[in-house]
Amino acid sequence: MDSLNVAGANFGIRRALAPDVPAIVALLTDDFLGETRETTDLSAYETAFARIDADPSHYLAVIVDATGAVVGTMQLTLIPGVSRGGATRLQIEAVRLAPSTRGRGLGTAMFAWAHEYGRGQGAALVQLTTDKKRADAHRFYERLGYAPSHEGFKLEL
Amino acid sequence: MDSLNVAGANFGIRRALAPDVPAIVALLTDDFLGETRETTDLSAYETAFARIDADPSHYLAVIVDATGAVVGTMQLTLIPGVSRGGATRLQIEAVRLAPSTRGRGLGTAMFAWAHEYGRGQGAALVQLTTDKKRADAHRFYERLGYAPSHEGFKLEL
Repeated sequence: MDSLNVAGANFGIRRALAPDVPAIVALLTDDFLGETRETTDLSAYETAFARIDADPSHYLAVIVDATGAVVGTMQLTLIPGVSRGGATRLQIEAVRLAPSTRGRGLGTAMFAWAHEYGRGQGAALVQLTTDKKRADAHRFYERLGYAPSHEGFKLEL
Repeated sequence: MDSLNVAGANFGIRRALAPDVPAIVALLTDDFLGETRETTDLSAYETAFARIDADPSHYLAVIVDATGAVVGTMQLTLIPGVSRGGATRLQIEAVRLAPSTRGRGLGTAMFAWAHEYGRGQGAALVQLTTDKKRADAHRFYERLGYAPSHEGFKLEL
């Protein structure tokens, strides 16, 4: 487990394990968009966890506090590609932090950790999309140096 | 090889092979953003191709015309995830069509094919980002039913 440097509190970050799935789902659901998008049926999440965990291209991370409780999550995926000189991208999905942890720099620390992970894996670029309704998140990513250069399109299949 | 239904011309779509790499790079470079972003050194692209080809999560597609010439490309990546009820996403990157093929519905046909591929692989959602400078592309994706619901952030590592 890696530690995250945050003033006044100790947090760790590690690869999620199967017993973390309910806590991850709770974080996804405790969100103004997630509350209508997530379900109470854990089996779909357990199946998804197994798929993620089986492929080393994915790093489903959990952030834990000093008591070992899961207080955050993010999913990192390495995507090799031909464009931009054959650049590998680090894609970040499903970022959540428990409201109780906010305002202490934990988000900044978890992104610094994610960027270091990406560099270590040879990624030249990190990318993510965030719902246009998440104005706070936009300011956060711009502070981290991200450019809002792209339009993010989605379609249900 | 699958065929793409386009009025008045026959095109096929198949998984890219190593000998297609120079033609894919030529398509990526023949683009107002790609022309400054791509390089003339093929070895980086060949290395990237080997990484993509080694992982069945990725489908680097080429579109070929009736003579077998490569006239288009797109990269599809399956990303299993916990959010949205454990949904698998189909991510689309690096879409290009040769200017000579445009205006005949080939883009629409290649996206219909990609969506069918995603459904067959269990994806519940398809997503892509496109540079805000590509206004024509935005109109194209909206016509296909994509919602521009997200802000796309990128950061060089």
